[in-house]
Amino acid sequence: MKNRVILAMDKYIPLEILSEIESEVYGLKIGLPLVLDLGLEKVRNLVKEVNIEEIIVDFKLADIGYVMKSVVEKMLFADSFIAHSFIGVKGSLDELKSYLDEKGKGLYLVASMSHSGWNNSFLSYIKEVIKEINPKGIVIGATKTDLISSFKREFSSIKIISPGVGVQGANYGDAICAGADFEIIGRSIYTAKDPVNQLKSINKIIEDRVMNCKGRVPK
Amino acid sequence: MKNRVILAMDKYIPLEILSEIESEVYGLKIGLPLVLDLGLEKVRNLVKEVNIEEIIVDFKLADIGYVMKSVVEKMLFADSFIAHSFIGVKGSLDELKSYLDEKGKGLYLVASMSHSGWNNSFLSYIKEVIKEINPKGIVIGATKTDLISSFKREFSSIKIISPGVGVQGANYGDAICAGADFEIIGRSIYTAKDPVNQLKSINKIIEDRVMNCKGRVPK
Repeated sequence: MKNRVILAMDKYIPLEILSEIESEVYGLKIGLPLVLDLGLEKVRNLVKEVNIEEIIVDFKLADIGYVMKSVVEKMLFADSFIAHSFIGVKGSLDELKSYLDEKGKGLYLVASMSHSGWNNSFLSYIKEVIKEINPKGIVIGATKTDLISSFKREFSSIKIISPGVGVQGANYGDAICAGADFEIIGRSIYTAKDPVNQLKSINKIIEDRVMNCKGRVPK
Repeated sequence: MKNRVILAMDKYIPLEILSEIESEVYGLKIGLPLVLDLGLEKVRNLVKEVNIEEIIVDFKLADIGYVMKSVVEKMLFADSFIAHSFIGVKGSLDELKSYLDEKGKGLYLVASMSHSGWNNSFLSYIKEVIKEINPKGIVIGATKTDLISSFKREFSSIKIISPGVGVQGANYGDAICAGADFEIIGRSIYTAKDPVNQLKSINKIIEDRVMNCKGRVPK
């Protein structure tokens, strides 16, 4: 079975461990805390050394186009970038999207976050922005399974990635059963005593779960 | 007259120039592009050398509490931090605010951005969040003078800082006339041939403008 886990790396994971992990994950999501800790150069070198299909930079960009471009242009070693839908199109996401298209890089837009304070009453606006920008993927908190299913039906060609699994409360496999393509897992893995085996166990749990929910995955 | 300019530093400005500028500005706003370019250590050293009243880190934070805390804890050399209101309170801004309070640091919340694609129809929600969090200040795009005046009336004790002046279209002094406390100016200064004199001219324009609008500044 294809790997369904994107490893969220907000803290440093040594290359020896990453090398053991790389065949067990689909992607690597690089957070701002890690980049502040290591500096760009070390992050770039680390990324070069690992053999992982997709490297996603997750700064949850939410600024004017000029600033967001100034950020991503320094990180073109990554494959894709996460930004908020909420900031709107003109003068912001339109400029970021054109720039990333030109560079052959992907854009993920946040549709709904995983914390309880996130307000979902702007959903129709968020969907408008997603339709206009047509990103590579969208980010929906794993606890919000109904939303995942509804987005999957509405945007069937757009990849869904789901954070909030493990420490943040969702069960492994829930989001995928609901229609997500990948689950983003971080702390449960990198704070484990044995991250490699922890990840293998998680993959097994997800695999079992997905076998049993197959019928419910929206097409 | 008290200085009304916050210098937005998204690109590196050499210490020699910063030292000449420091008496001409109220604050220094540090952007993510600069931190990625220089690395944290060099930014920390630069900030140590300048004598400016308020150092504001502007990453437009918009994440869960855990991630935002992991970011700001590395930058406690600054006085305050900018985050988005729209991410909501529980599990996000509540945790950030408590942490910053504990460390004696300030929080600014974005109420309205300066680009044309920003959607102001969520304003009542944004105001709710601002009331609940009670930040040190709020950020409102300088082109939105009506909004600045209305926020100033509603949140009279909260500082208003306004980006979008100069290159982004607002005239120097407009935001202050409307009720803002400070105008954030970046590119017009750091891309000028002579940034020091450029800043002095801008200060003079603002001073003249404010003299003539005095009656319109909401109390």
